[in-house]
Amino acid sequence: MAEAVRHDKTARQLRLLSDALDSGRLGPVRRLINTLAPAEIGNLLESLPPGKREVVWGLVDPEDDGEVLVHVGDEVRESLLADMDPDEIIAAVEDLDIDDLADLVEDLPDTVIDEVLKSMDRENRERLEQVLSYPEDTAGRLMNPDVVTVRADVNVDVVLRYLRLRGELPDHTDHLFVVSRRHQYLGRLSLASLVTHDDSTPINRLIDDEQPAIAVEDSADAVARQFTDHDWISAPVVDDNNILLGRITIDDVVDIIREQAEHQALGAAGLDEDEDLFSPVARAFRRRLTWLGINLGTAFLASSVVGRFEGTIEKIVALAVLMPIVAGMGGNAGTQVLALMVRGLALGQVGASNVRVLLWKELRVALMNGLSLGLVLGIIVFLWFHDLPLSLVIGTALTINLLSAATAGVMVPLTLKRMGFDPALAGGVILTTVTDVMGFLSFLGLATVVLLR
Amino acid sequence: MAEAVRHDKTARQLRLLSDALDSGRLGPVRRLINTLAPAEIGNLLESLPPGKREVVWGLVDPEDDGEVLVHVGDEVRESLLADMDPDEIIAAVEDLDIDDLADLVEDLPDTVIDEVLKSMDRENRERLEQVLSYPEDTAGRLMNPDVVTVRADVNVDVVLRYLRLRGELPDHTDHLFVVSRRHQYLGRLSLASLVTHDDSTPINRLIDDEQPAIAVEDSADAVARQFTDHDWISAPVVDDNNILLGRITIDDVVDIIREQAEHQALGAAGLDEDEDLFSPVARAFRRRLTWLGINLGTAFLASSVVGRFEGTIEKIVALAVLMPIVAGMGGNAGTQVLALMVRGLALGQVGASNVRVLLWKELRVALMNGLSLGLVLGIIVFLWFHDLPLSLVIGTALTINLLSAATAGVMVPLTLKRMGFDPALAGGVILTTVTDVMGFLSFLGLATVVLLR
Repeated sequence: MAEAVRHDKTARQLRLLSDALDSGRLGPVRRLINTLAPAEIGNLLESLPPGKREVVWGLVDPEDDGEVLVHVGDEVRESLLADMDPDEIIAAVEDLDIDDLADLVEDLPDTVIDEVLKSMDRENRERLEQVLSYPEDTAGRLMNPDVVTVRADVNVDVVLRYLRLRGELPDHTDHLFVVSRRHQYLGRLSLASLVTHDDSTPINRLIDDEQPAIAVEDSADAVARQFTDHDWISAPVVDDNNILLGRITIDDVVDIIREQAEHQALGAAGLDEDEDLFSPVARAFRRRLTWLGINLGTAFLASSVVGRFEGTIEKIVALAVLMPIVAGMGGNAGTQVLALMVRGLALGQVGASNVRVLLWKELRVALMNGLSLGLVLGIIVFLWFHDLPLSLVIGTALTINLLSAATAGVMVPLTLKRMGFDPALAGGVILTTVTDVMGFLSFLGLATVVLLR
Repeated sequence: MAEAVRHDKTARQLRLLSDALDSGRLGPVRRLINTLAPAEIGNLLESLPPGKREVVWGLVDPEDDGEVLVHVGDEVRESLLADMDPDEIIAAVEDLDIDDLADLVEDLPDTVIDEVLKSMDRENRERLEQVLSYPEDTAGRLMNPDVVTVRADVNVDVVLRYLRLRGELPDHTDHLFVVSRRHQYLGRLSLASLVTHDDSTPINRLIDDEQPAIAVEDSADAVARQFTDHDWISAPVVDDNNILLGRITIDDVVDIIREQAEHQALGAAGLDEDEDLFSPVARAFRRRLTWLGINLGTAFLASSVVGRFEGTIEKIVALAVLMPIVAGMGGNAGTQVLALMVRGLALGQVGASNVRVLLWKELRVALMNGLSLGLVLGIIVFLWFHDLPLSLVIGTALTINLLSAATAGVMVPLTLKRMGFDPALAGGVILTTVTDVMGFLSFLGLATVVLLR
């Protein structure tokens, strides 16, 4: 039921917007859009089919253009950029934070990138180039080099005076970072401690040096993990020599977590998480074709097993009627184990030390399910075909296939991970191939041995 | 490849811990555990099979017990609580924040809840009771009533003096909330603006009253959406009369987002996101049985379709060999559309206004895939069985089933949502039933008409 009320607001806006667009009244559309945050505008643009998307994009306040571009998926971003001329793009992106700009820059046309770099002052250009020098999906790429640092050997009043002189702080500043003369990271100083202590308190006494800093080469996943484990709002990024390079904030981490989730949900179906709901038909066709082609290959593998038993099926056609049940049930049971394993592997909760216990547990669950459902299936088949040996064969085959499914559900993702593949992506195809093959083999094989004697 | 390095740290700790446990040396285990944050300890406990889990739980510093309990799934929490006596539980939970305590309290034995309430001072007890009076998964349940408020008609120096008198601020305080004499919410005051403005600046000038407050009855999903749309760290919660009731912080929102993702990933396989990796076999068996029972029912539905064509299969056994391909490919193609739709619905991006455009796009993609893959499939089948009419039948049947799959992929989740069901949970079962039935029906039906003339 939660799903039913979720994001009613976006759905309502979408409806209002569509009605207004259909009626051709652009005034209300512009007014509606300009009450929204950039992320909300991005969400709305993603939900519009091509023609309407361009109209609405043209109505967005140019000041918001950059932030909106940051908040949409790669494919939609591409379609929005295609509607802008170079000057508009440069105006849109030049006020972005360095980390957002770094995220965007590789989607821009080369000529525009040059122009953007030229339009920046030297300090910011160097910062952008530094961030871009780190590989994608690392802490270096996620950080913003714009940090506020203080020294340890002063008092609260000195820091407050410095901050008042400085004026505005970067977004999401909950801590200042304390550094040595050589810019080595010493610890954090929370704004909360700054406002709750007397002017004369030495900063030394307020430093929190217990929290580790993030290493610049840490993966985005490791960064997200550290943030959620420690409940951080922001964290410092340092190099091998403990020199402070920048700062990562929770808003980027929330994006990582959302992307991980989408990557798993869509990846399991062979889709890219950046896929546009309304991507051009030709592009969607080509991409899906690859995935379906792989699945066609595995389907032939399973069919070839059935082909080996043509003679048996010719004599007992009921086998053809019933064989999808055995194969399908194995797929369902195996998918459950796979889902648990994928989550466990993603959280680092499954490894060599506990996989045997886990497999043993899943085999026992599968045996109990196989015996119970095998009995039910056997009874129904007996009532349908009045053939006791056939009932016994299908019940046994189901149990065998559920045991195979449990084994594959545990071992396939583990093996994929050891080989360096993402179990969330390839796991399902391999698993259902195993359960189809084993389902047909056990059922038709047993039938050949038992029923055709 | 990212998957391969993900959470190596947890995996390494798990290995170290297991080795130490196996060797019986508990000293190193205790030392390792006490270097970890409570969330990390929770993650480790979740990865341990029952026997070891209890040993390690006994070694956790009692001071961390409460925070660890907050950070584990419901089932694991239950197993940990079962190992504690009432006094230990009370000691563990009494220092928790109100929102964490509210989250935990319903899992506690009734007698312990009474003791916990008795051990609290009156103010905290009333706050807890207030939070518990709101339904689960609403803003009221997520909020912490412990907020720092200031008046609008004072200057910065008055606020700073008040904060210094007050001492510590609640975790994740990035804003103070400005309220009227009647405790109505007027706006937020960031710590950043407080430390960057002169003592004599009136608070009036620093208030941010542009950001909306969260309504106490908002759903957890709506709360998460607002936080990510506006990049908030914390936000005020108000009632219908705009009276400030409490505050929600980003750490709870990150937990909601993670839970949503797990709910989708595991829910699609018929699992509960709180399922313990090592839940007792009898319990896992019972829960999976329900899911597999539903799937057995739908499998019979598909089989009954095949049963209608026994006569046809008897004459052409190749149909039995090939029919799983047509059904399976429909399932794969439909699952892709379903995955896109589930994400779109969750983000509020799909509704009555654009579903027709979307369906039309998906039908064209399906037609192109159907014709291409149908041709490939037809050629392979011709090379295998040397039967041109059979090749034509299977190619056509595949195209028909991919079109059915696209239609079902769009309409099934939309219909489920309109009926108030979660499309992420029930969508897959219904979709594959449609594609199995339509796959068998189109292939065997066409074969009967064309090949048996």
